[in-house]
Amino acid sequence: MAKPLNIGLIGYGFMGRTHSNAYRKVNQFFDLEYHPVMKAICARSEETLQAFAERWGWESCETDWHKLIERDDIDAIDIASPNNTHHDIAVAAAQAGKMVLCEKPLAINAAEGLEMAEAVEQAGVANMVWFNYRRVPAIALAKQLVTEGRLGKVFHYRAEYLQDWTISPKVPQGGATLWRLDAEVAGSGVTGDLLAHSIDTAMWLNGPIHSVTAMTETFIKERELQDEPGKIGPVSIDDACAFLVRFENGAMGTFESTRYARGRKNYNTFEINGEGGSLCFDLEDAHRLEYFDNCDDDHVHGWRSILVTDFEHPYMDKWWVPGCVIGYEHTFINALADFLDSLASGETLQPDFRCALDTQIVCDAVLESAKSGQWIEIAGG
Amino acid sequence: MAKPLNIGLIGYGFMGRTHSNAYRKVNQFFDLEYHPVMKAICARSEETLQAFAERWGWESCETDWHKLIERDDIDAIDIASPNNTHHDIAVAAAQAGKMVLCEKPLAINAAEGLEMAEAVEQAGVANMVWFNYRRVPAIALAKQLVTEGRLGKVFHYRAEYLQDWTISPKVPQGGATLWRLDAEVAGSGVTGDLLAHSIDTAMWLNGPIHSVTAMTETFIKERELQDEPGKIGPVSIDDACAFLVRFENGAMGTFESTRYARGRKNYNTFEINGEGGSLCFDLEDAHRLEYFDNCDDDHVHGWRSILVTDFEHPYMDKWWVPGCVIGYEHTFINALADFLDSLASGETLQPDFRCALDTQIVCDAVLESAKSGQWIEIAGG
Amino acid sequence: MAKPLNIGLIGYGFMGRTHSNAYRKVNQFFDLEYHPVMKAICARSEETLQAFAERWGWESCETDWHKLIERDDIDAIDIASPNNTHHDIAVAAAQAGKMVLCEKPLAINAAEGLEMAEAVEQAGVANMVWFNYRRVPAIALAKQLVTEGRLGKVFHYRAEYLQDWTISPKVPQGGATLWRLDAEVAGSGVTGDLLAHSIDTAMWLNGPIHSVTAMTETFIKERELQDEPGKIGPVSIDDACAFLVRFENGAMGTFESTRYARGRKNYNTFEINGEGGSLCFDLEDAHRLEYFDNCDDDHVHGWRSILVTDFEHPYMDKWWVPGCVIGYEHTFINALADFLDSLASGETLQPDFRCALDTQIVCDAVLESAKSGQWIEIAGG
Amino acid sequence: MAKPLNIGLIGYGFMGRTHSNAYRKVNQFFDLEYHPVMKAICARSEETLQAFAERWGWESCETDWHKLIERDDIDAIDIASPNNTHHDIAVAAAQAGKMVLCEKPLAINAAEGLEMAEAVEQAGVANMVWFNYRRVPAIALAKQLVTEGRLGKVFHYRAEYLQDWTISPKVPQGGATLWRLDAEVAGSGVTGDLLAHSIDTAMWLNGPIHSVTAMTETFIKERELQDEPGKIGPVSIDDACAFLVRFENGAMGTFESTRYARGRKNYNTFEINGEGGSLCFDLEDAHRLEYFDNCDDDHVHGWRSILVTDFEHPYMDKWWVPGCVIGYEHTFINALADFLDSLASGETLQPDFRCALDTQIVCDAVLESAKSGQWIEIAGG
Repeated sequence: MAKPLNIGLIGYGFMGRTHSNAYRKVNQFFDLEYHPVMKAICARSEETLQAFAERWGWESCETDWHKLIERDDIDAIDIASPNNTHHDIAVAAAQAGKMVLCEKPLAINAAEGLEMAEAVEQAGVANMVWFNYRRVPAIALAKQLVTEGRLGKVFHYRAEYLQDWTISPKVPQGGATLWRLDAEVAGSGVTGDLLAHSIDTAMWLNGPIHSVTAMTETFIKERELQDEPGKIGPVSIDDACAFLVRFENGAMGTFESTRYARGRKNYNTFEINGEGGSLCFDLEDAHRLEYFDNCDDDHVHGWRSILVTDFEHPYMDKWWVPGCVIGYEHTFINALADFLDSLASGETLQPDFRCALDTQIVCDAVLESAKSGQWIEIAGG
Repeated sequence: MAKPLNIGLIGYGFMGRTHSNAYRKVNQFFDLEYHPVMKAICARSEETLQAFAERWGWESCETDWHKLIERDDIDAIDIASPNNTHHDIAVAAAQAGKMVLCEKPLAINAAEGLEMAEAVEQAGVANMVWFNYRRVPAIALAKQLVTEGRLGKVFHYRAEYLQDWTISPKVPQGGATLWRLDAEVAGSGVTGDLLAHSIDTAMWLNGPIHSVTAMTETFIKERELQDEPGKIGPVSIDDACAFLVRFENGAMGTFESTRYARGRKNYNTFEINGEGGSLCFDLEDAHRLEYFDNCDDDHVHGWRSILVTDFEHPYMDKWWVPGCVIGYEHTFINALADFLDSLASGETLQPDFRCALDTQIVCDAVLESAKSGQWIEIAGG
Repeated sequence: MAKPLNIGLIGYGFMGRTHSNAYRKVNQFFDLEYHPVMKAICARSEETLQAFAERWGWESCETDWHKLIERDDIDAIDIASPNNTHHDIAVAAAQAGKMVLCEKPLAINAAEGLEMAEAVEQAGVANMVWFNYRRVPAIALAKQLVTEGRLGKVFHYRAEYLQDWTISPKVPQGGATLWRLDAEVAGSGVTGDLLAHSIDTAMWLNGPIHSVTAMTETFIKERELQDEPGKIGPVSIDDACAFLVRFENGAMGTFESTRYARGRKNYNTFEINGEGGSLCFDLEDAHRLEYFDNCDDDHVHGWRSILVTDFEHPYMDKWWVPGCVIGYEHTFINALADFLDSLASGETLQPDFRCALDTQIVCDAVLESAKSGQWIEIAGG
Repeated sequence: MAKPLNIGLIGYGFMGRTHSNAYRKVNQFFDLEYHPVMKAICARSEETLQAFAERWGWESCETDWHKLIERDDIDAIDIASPNNTHHDIAVAAAQAGKMVLCEKPLAINAAEGLEMAEAVEQAGVANMVWFNYRRVPAIALAKQLVTEGRLGKVFHYRAEYLQDWTISPKVPQGGATLWRLDAEVAGSGVTGDLLAHSIDTAMWLNGPIHSVTAMTETFIKERELQDEPGKIGPVSIDDACAFLVRFENGAMGTFESTRYARGRKNYNTFEINGEGGSLCFDLEDAHRLEYFDNCDDDHVHGWRSILVTDFEHPYMDKWWVPGCVIGYEHTFINALADFLDSLASGETLQPDFRCALDTQIVCDAVLESAKSGQWIEIAGG
């Protein structure tokens, strides 16, 4: 019989939904030693919170996260609230001896992130950052192929993360659902929100980053405030960001993200070119991995479109049958399963806070370079 | 507060999982007047049944479907057991006044299917057949575009449903997980299992079929019996089937299915060519619909790849955000939501048993034509 | 120094242009023992013929093909005139001891085709039918992969040849540029014009056809006559044709062609599914061949998109460099080079008249089956 | 009757072939006031030159370009020799009153390029640089769509030009066929050879570049010398180059090129994201242009794959019929036709030397930035 793991989730926005769904489903699909118990959901707005709890099956509600952390019946705190709340909650939770799961980006800057990483390490509590895209089966397969040595020496890494939902000047900023457009709450714009994913994936697949030079742009300078209709305020975030990279392994890298790429919805892509082969991925076709294998016979060389739905593929033996895809939400379930497995095995799960801090450090360097116009070396990179 | 609808599910194989998952999830994503209650799961093997019930949250178990039907606390019987059990269960359930949901194909032949359709109609009970692919958002969008009149007069309809999982002669037949390879249990091979989907979609999008001529093939003539290892038996099913069609609207059609198409996993495709435009779909990229619009300016004519993940697309406002795909399992959840909605609205949901019978009639004609080599007109087609 | 081969070309329409271009270019790209000399161009309309000759560099003009055949300075007669002229010219040319190159389809029916094949065989003259698509590098590569045994036992063959240029009822029929819509001149509609290509490729790749059952349709029943503006006549051709096939090797086949597939311009495709692998081709992306190799490791199985532009690929060492594509016209140049090579080597080049006759026989059977609704066995198939 | 234009071509390598082919073919496909006469081919190696002249139909040979320029029977000098010869030949030809056509890049640096531009301007002679990819029909269509205002305000421009042919350390450098790997002859590596194309296209489509920051890399530091087998020398070129751009219109740009991208053969791509729509192109599928039109109805938004083979598309009315592609070589023929047309109309053809100088200036800035690590503003950009 699986052991209960009592969860307290903070935040019931978009990420609150994805996490709740993961807690509800993980045990039907994975054979695990632990089963999460949806003990408490926490947010400030009591009324809507109650409806959310009922819909998703949370046993209780809290409107003050400090109280949630104090509760003895909570084993793990899951932080799905806006970025500027991550630090205080995570540090307090760690100090209270709770496991901590935290949405990405880890923090609004590396200084806060460092304190968070140190807090969980000093407390010795299990911790994870929800870089869910590592758990896309095709990306996990990419990692496997890299580990198998199929790419050989890597020359190039390219990443793009393109969306188009803020092109209209009528989109307001700030507020409950648009805090990602407010740098005070989010830390930054696309850099923390989207490029953090790209950087996490890149360092997972290709190792540490040595240095960067970057540019950012804010195309629309003023927007209405969501919480104060009619009031216009300056836009504080980076609408778009591009940077060049030198990896420690000698590879060159290019990264770009924007929310102004008409026609791109969740176009999170990467391409790796190695001596032995290349890989290409696009989240809009997340069930496919493109692979060029230089070992193929010369006359049948070609990019293979691997339909990542077979039992041999990462995570896919847990779901349906070959040819039947899983979706966006399953990346969170796969991540949760990995976390629960790591509790059972005692192995450290990646990405933990320390690992996510490395991504945060690169994000900070990117933003700094965009201001100074200079190449920046990654400290300890 | 949503009204409970007490469900008794028969079968806990692959389809038992997809249905159980639908019952567990539908109310978190759809706002419905009804919420299904997972009252009882029924199958013959008591031991494994218990584990399944626990994993999925079924309140009770039954090992005899007659008893399940007799229970007063069951509102709806959901049939996910092998095809040759559909008829008796459905008729009995209808006669007991239960709603009936039935996996496809409706029956092992049209004669049984007719009795089933008449049974639910005489009993006046709600009924649905799980042709889940109608609830793929991209296919539902195709239906919408047809309904909007964007295709105009239709000239051609093409459907393929290709898989490759039975190429190895080592795959056994019959038994708990391979009854689809036993014509006595399944009724037929790819015709009932795969082409039934293609035919249902085709008639939904393009209207009734007038006549067919067909061929079938059984590539591997003998296979081991799953239940009697070491014993070889003749293969009774059609491994592959292809047929030509004349639709009542004058369109020509071609249909093909096989489980011997190396490299095709769940390649369920259709293409419709109309005077005003064309549509193209492939279930292996289920989140996309290809659309050629003849109204575009001449120099920018082209097939559009519609990423069917926007809030404007069928079902997608219920799930995540644009660019985030749903998967195979969600087609069942969407179907269930439609069924529950139809209970609330009192409208007849399609495909009901009568509609599924039309598909069964075409399947029978296809198999008959494959034997006779003659064109067959669809009775009442 | 290359030996001259004096050419007399009959016809200066679309095919007259492709052949003229081939004669002008072949020796710059291929190292050949022969070089064609553009001796004479023949057509009935003297005036426009002269302009054509000047533009393309034909040395002289003839307005009567009998005279052309009589000329001593002509080694080879190339027939690019409408289908109903093929027979008489070819037979006369062969009897005059000329080599004969003939556009496809060989004839307007198999009876005429047989006489043509016998004429060239009795005369012992070199002969070729311009099924140019065999010389698409990707299709030639497909043939190579089949020959290498990579597909193993073949289960399925599918071919489609879809266009959309006759959807408008305003397109007239007959006349100098639209004789393909007049069955008296063309022999048939899409069957002879498009499916002849598909059948030739299919039998080249997968061997003889055993039997067929077919349907045809004429969607627009009347059209204006191109040569008599304002006059309407019944449409005599098949606008669309689909048929089922049993190959002699046991494979099932489906074939379809139409000029009413909105959005398809020159969509000439095939897919072959074998035990060891599959191939897929689309003429609209003619520089690519899709290949699924079952020998790949399980977790990296996938359809490879082979960019057929490397020096290792058929014909491509003669053209530019990897990554640089050739186009439609080059298929004729490649074919001509093969023909000239066969003269030097003395080997029989395929497809010759006898081989093209086999395709004609299948076309006739298809048209007959479409009338009778019966399966037809291919005589001597 | 077309007027003769006597051509003297310098260089008979790969580009010598593409130009010769263009001169031979242009008048069969385009109706022009001028027809080029293949008067003289010039190169140092007399023996092989003669064979080249015979194969392609050049009337005479010269082994000293000074003599070629002195000839009275030459109207236009076409420079297809290595980059470090462009300057002297072009200046001398202009001073001799000859028209000058020059392969790209214009020169080995901007200083030489400026002298060349001034020379042709002072002499008042027609001049063109062979940036042939502007004449890819799909790229010309992209220009047309930009000009039609379909993209609106542009936010992003991305270009990649990826190849993989120098990954092997066994590829030698320098010499007759590998001078592109010798910076002394080529000026630079991928920057001048490949990125010059990308920059020319970018500025044509999106206007001037304001500033750049760049990085370059030489992955393989030493290679054998082609002309001195056994002797190893340091590699002087940039194997790869990436840079960030700010355009004068406010758009952000990213550019990258390499010859170390395993699996990419001639992957010359761009993507433009504007408020009203986006465009995407890949030279490996050169007959297609991807277009996202924000004006489409919401539920049918999608990237259109425009098959650029219709009569309505740039250049395509001159070639075959819809669905029939042209290839790499045709871009040179299209360019030549445009040049000949410009002679007739008296309009200045783009890109002329002055325009190509702008590209050269950006290339120089890129290489300088790669050394300094600083952003560089484009002089007069």
